[in-house]
Amino acid sequence: MKLYDRGPSGNCHKVRLLLSMLGLEYEKESVDLGKEENRRPEFLRLNPRGQVPTLTDGDVTVWDSQAILVYLARRYGGEEWLPTEAVAMAEVMQWLAMSENEFLFGLARARQNKKMNGPWPWDLTSALARSGLAVINDQLEEHDWLALGRPTIADLACYPYVALAHEGEISLDDYPAVRAWMARIRALPGYVGMPGIGD
Amino acid sequence: MKLYDRGPSGNCHKVRLLLSMLGLEYEKESVDLGKEENRRPEFLRLNPRGQVPTLTDGDVTVWDSQAILVYLARRYGGEEWLPTEAVAMAEVMQWLAMSENEFLFGLARARQNKKMNGPWPWDLTSALARSGLAVINDQLEEHDWLALGRPTIADLACYPYVALAHEGEISLDDYPAVRAWMARIRALPGYVGMPGIGD
Repeated sequence: MKLYDRGPSGNCHKVRLLLSMLGLEYEKESVDLGKEENRRPEFLRLNPRGQVPTLTDGDVTVWDSQAILVYLARRYGGEEWLPTEAVAMAEVMQWLAMSENEFLFGLARARQNKKMNGPWPWDLTSALARSGLAVINDQLEEHDWLALGRPTIADLACYPYVALAHEGEISLDDYPAVRAWMARIRALPGYVGMPGIGD
Repeated sequence: MKLYDRGPSGNCHKVRLLLSMLGLEYEKESVDLGKEENRRPEFLRLNPRGQVPTLTDGDVTVWDSQAILVYLARRYGGEEWLPTEAVAMAEVMQWLAMSENEFLFGLARARQNKKMNGPWPWDLTSALARSGLAVINDQLEEHDWLALGRPTIADLACYPYVALAHEGEISLDDYPAVRAWMARIRALPGYVGMPGIGD
């Protein structure tokens, strides 16, 4: 298995977390966006969006962090990380959707704005981020995990950009239940850190 | 089954399409955002994000268009609209992710900007939208449907905001394969239109 990866990417870290927690061996290939390696024809054949993470597993190629989490969970995780029963799967999917919305276009874009001079305005992205943080904080006041009372890909999808919030100058002071959940994630077997997130 | 709905919402239309194509009976309750009905405590108990679509089905509540599509497909659609095998499910998920990214923060936010004075800048959102349209146009030049060679929730998740692109002043002239795919979707049994999208 090969993960096309970029160290500072929270989306890549979602995948690194699940690969590690599932105990899967894989090779990492770093894609240098500065050299536009992601726009080379051979990479665009793997992923027409020209993005990381992209995963190859034998003759299977999957792009997009959400799709890769679903792929790995279904192929290697049994029913544990993403069950197939309709209500349970939908519960996980709700928070995956939040990871793509409030957290990707909120937290991650605010971080890009502050850290990498990204173009999406900080006022809009940080407000969107805080609306999502408030929702998960409420959820996590009453539940240890976002869905199903156990760790699922919902938690792994939301975790990296939440843990990197400070790089977007968004404080987690108002979200104590979120901070407690982050500590629970860090205590899971197979947890790995990344730059900007404590180990 | 009850769908908390808003007529002009493309996200609600994704759900209306699948409900209709699955032949499911349901009740619609319109939520007036102008009156902040979505911020009332009884609505926030159903959906902590305060958004439509939200679906109730007996004692099950599901929020978020992506999660609702997954729920309905799994519960009422067998393996047809969203299969559970890992590779096939991931293939569908890739395009669901695009519907939440390039199309929600691209096409839908550009539409909000032009039609409802929305705050997300048109230059950024329209550029993001076009990057997504180029990717699906390439895919649809070689395939009739986004995933698996047949209609799935991938198509229904992407369709509404693509079909509403003109309301965000984004032309589909450069994407002929996308326009041909839209015609195929409109020809599916159970297809329903919405304001701004021809029937």
